[in-house]
Amino acid sequence: MEKNQEILLVSRPKGLPHEDNFSILDTSIPTIKEGEVLVRSLYVSVDPYMRGRMSDKKSYVPPYALHEVIIGGVVGEVIETKADHLNVGDVVVGYLGWRKYNAVEANQVTKIDPTLAPISTALGVLGMPGLTAYFGLLDIGQPKQGETVVISGAAGAVGMIVGQIAKIKGCRVVGIAGSDTKVDYLIKELGFDVAINYKTTENMKKALAEACPNGIDVYFDNVGGDISDAVLSLINKGARIPLCGQISLYNLEKADIGPRAQTALLINSALMKGFIVGDYSQRFNEGLLQLSQWVKEGKIKYAENIVEGFENIPKAFLGLFKGENLGKQLVKVAEWHPKK
Amino acid sequence: MEKNQEILLVSRPKGLPHEDNFSILDTSIPTIKEGEVLVRSLYVSVDPYMRGRMSDKKSYVPPYALHEVIIGGVVGEVIETKADHLNVGDVVVGYLGWRKYNAVEANQVTKIDPTLAPISTALGVLGMPGLTAYFGLLDIGQPKQGETVVISGAAGAVGMIVGQIAKIKGCRVVGIAGSDTKVDYLIKELGFDVAINYKTTENMKKALAEACPNGIDVYFDNVGGDISDAVLSLINKGARIPLCGQISLYNLEKADIGPRAQTALLINSALMKGFIVGDYSQRFNEGLLQLSQWVKEGKIKYAENIVEGFENIPKAFLGLFKGENLGKQLVKVAEWHPKK
Repeated sequence: MEKNQEILLVSRPKGLPHEDNFSILDTSIPTIKEGEVLVRSLYVSVDPYMRGRMSDKKSYVPPYALHEVIIGGVVGEVIETKADHLNVGDVVVGYLGWRKYNAVEANQVTKIDPTLAPISTALGVLGMPGLTAYFGLLDIGQPKQGETVVISGAAGAVGMIVGQIAKIKGCRVVGIAGSDTKVDYLIKELGFDVAINYKTTENMKKALAEACPNGIDVYFDNVGGDISDAVLSLINKGARIPLCGQISLYNLEKADIGPRAQTALLINSALMKGFIVGDYSQRFNEGLLQLSQWVKEGKIKYAENIVEGFENIPKAFLGLFKGENLGKQLVKVAEWHPKK
Repeated sequence: MEKNQEILLVSRPKGLPHEDNFSILDTSIPTIKEGEVLVRSLYVSVDPYMRGRMSDKKSYVPPYALHEVIIGGVVGEVIETKADHLNVGDVVVGYLGWRKYNAVEANQVTKIDPTLAPISTALGVLGMPGLTAYFGLLDIGQPKQGETVVISGAAGAVGMIVGQIAKIKGCRVVGIAGSDTKVDYLIKELGFDVAINYKTTENMKKALAEACPNGIDVYFDNVGGDISDAVLSLINKGARIPLCGQISLYNLEKADIGPRAQTALLINSALMKGFIVGDYSQRFNEGLLQLSQWVKEGKIKYAENIVEGFENIPKAFLGLFKGENLGKQLVKVAEWHPKK
């Protein structure tokens, strides 16, 4: 059996994270205790929210400790078990360490059915990003037939699912993304009505006004900053704004100064609400059932951007802030050989 | 019978409004048509939201036209009638011109019962400000027993009712106001737990942190700007922020730049929602019934700041932006002699 490896956070990023903030350590494969399983990592998820945990500022999740392993979404295979309800060969998903092998209590992971969908989707459309899109859009955004829904970070793991759900609900869907490839994908593959490349658009407000002749009813915000300022200037009476992320700000070292949103909200009786997927943990089954159904019917497509190799996890994470990923960014750590 | 007078908006204020923006005109008393009543103004309401209508920027109500009479809340007495259901001597409330005498369609005013409460309360605790407090706090703020509610503009017509409803709901109530007299009144007369004079407090964030040892669950915002920035830095997970007004900004000529609220909302899964009382017009009866009940039981007290004389309406309006009013600012235009 090969050796274990893990990735530690060794310094807190100032501004944009850098590979020097991380260190790969050779360790030994842990011995499991009663009630635990040994999980071999297959896919590791890298997500924008993890940037928040790398700072020691207050965020919606506690900070990572320095010189400890980073925790995130992992899909893996049980290769040893001392737990009643998990067997060797089972595929599980959970928040595990950035390690090749994790020893975890069996109740810390969830078994997934590899016959329903590719196992990597448990980190994407049928996992945290899918549920984030589902609850943020439907519970906070409450899109109605014929309304206009604008999505920033539209070609990310969450954004592209939001847009497709909004289309299912009969909305006009306008996506904002950072490359022509992404814009093409959103329109041609996912059926967005309009997509705008913010990097090549000089006047975002003008472009949005043209894309949204009836104003904006729902703004699903993944990015914050200037792009959101432009959207806010165009919202309709009664607009709803789910705040899912503010990736444009995560690497700011100082306070986020700009036009305050309050006046736009006040004059439009509009609602803005932050959320994290965990706010809806009691309803995950409902969400997964509906998302699986839509994927099966072909109403929701998903895209994955897969990098290979455990050692490339930090690089894949850094890529999120350069907008390199179309869809869900994953790292494939090991080959999976399903049992027959 | 005396002559009629009316007050026109003759120029749009730049920054703080000035008496020169208004002009008093002598006119004749109008002749009423079928279905109309002639209403003699008794009390005229001046309200912060009217500043928005004096600009030609988009707001939640359309702008006042230049060289036309200003429209606002008025309580008056019917002195002539050509309408079936209103009689001479009836007291009514409605959105009427700043005139001594208004001819209006009978369905544009609401008859009030002068035996239930002083007629001026139809412009205050039992009118628009009371309903604003009621729906904003209860529907958006949703205060729960034991939670901490912070109110800016706490000694204004809306703020002091918000605080008293929050006390009825079992909350810790912290008011922010602009003078020691107001602060004393909030604590000693209205039962606020803490009140802070923002004009004499150097570090608002520190003062609020001390006043709110368990953080802030509901922030009822009447003022915006720096005060709101300080409050936002202390909100709890799941906080609710009804945006009722932004009086600190109404006289700004440029965009309101400051820390964007989005990050605070995101990391706390918090909700911020603008509203106007008209959003709840279908539920006004419910609100008035409950407010009347609380006033009758002595659970809600109200304060009125009454200036005398029609010609002083502009001055009373300007006083709102200097924080001169404790409670509802009214102008008494004529003496009322109730019929026996």
